[in-house]
Amino acid sequence: MRQFFLVLVLIWAGATVIAQPASPNTTAIDTAAIKATLAAQVEAWNRGDVTAFMQGYDDSPETTFVGAEVRKGYAPILERYRTNYANRAQMGTLSFSNLEIRLLPSACGSAEYAVVTGNFHLERTAMGAAKRNDGIFSLVWHKGPQGWKIVLDHTS
Amino acid sequence: MRQFFLVLVLIWAGATVIAQPASPNTTAIDTAAIKATLAAQVEAWNRGDVTAFMQGYDDSPETTFVGAEVRKGYAPILERYRTNYANRAQMGTLSFSNLEIRLLPSACGSAEYAVVTGNFHLERTAMGAAKRNDGIFSLVWHKGPQGWKIVLDHTS
Repeated sequence: MRQFFLVLVLIWAGATVIAQPASPNTTAIDTAAIKATLAAQVEAWNRGDVTAFMQGYDDSPETTFVGAEVRKGYAPILERYRTNYANRAQMGTLSFSNLEIRLLPSACGSAEYAVVTGNFHLERTAMGAAKRNDGIFSLVWHKGPQGWKIVLDHTS
Repeated sequence: MRQFFLVLVLIWAGATVIAQPASPNTTAIDTAAIKATLAAQVEAWNRGDVTAFMQGYDDSPETTFVGAEVRKGYAPILERYRTNYANRAQMGTLSFSNLEIRLLPSACGSAEYAVVTGNFHLERTAMGAAKRNDGIFSLVWHKGPQGWKIVLDHTS
């Protein structure tokens, strides 16, 4: 009987862990992780390192970039950046503003998805295939084994 | 000892239910529900019923519309539609194309979030504040007590 009671307590404890909503601490950690990834992307871009910039995206054929049209897959998205920003001068200096991070709650615990909205600005001396120096974006993020990664980027 | 074994089996069964990935059936049901909501939105728009069209969105102050700028909240988004498409002629006839629905898997079971990309087209005889008859959109959906609802709409 004591064993039975002990097992019931263990089930209860397990269920509590599973159903626990995200703690303020988890929220702060997730938000900070996303901010850090965005900051690392800006830093990578501004030293001309598109490959490092792409580390912010989920390395999956499902990863989606919505610009004038929908482009799917990590490799095609990287290729698009390389084509549209062909050299250091065309890349220029990137900055983000008005960043808003919204963690999307999950029924089973801490957030696995998040959306981020913001604006980008490029200071540059040359323009390639990409004609905009300013724009707005929304990003969908997923928290996976590699941490928080962008699974959808819509930039306009 | 038999009781103990029984409880262990129950824990195992419970954990299996919790960790079960979305079945093909659940995926089909969720995808069909999202498609039905989009179809209902088109139908509502095309009879000039903006309020019914808005039923596709989550009725929350967090619901976000990204156009030229970020607009937050169900009421401000409804207001924007009313202002930008002030009458039946300005609303015209809406159609969607290239719809792609991607359910976002959750670690604890069936999908709670989804992203949809697609194009819109308006056939109309008058133009108000909204100047585009064609565009591309990405939508983030959440499955809540009211079913699947849009929590973020980026249209460009």
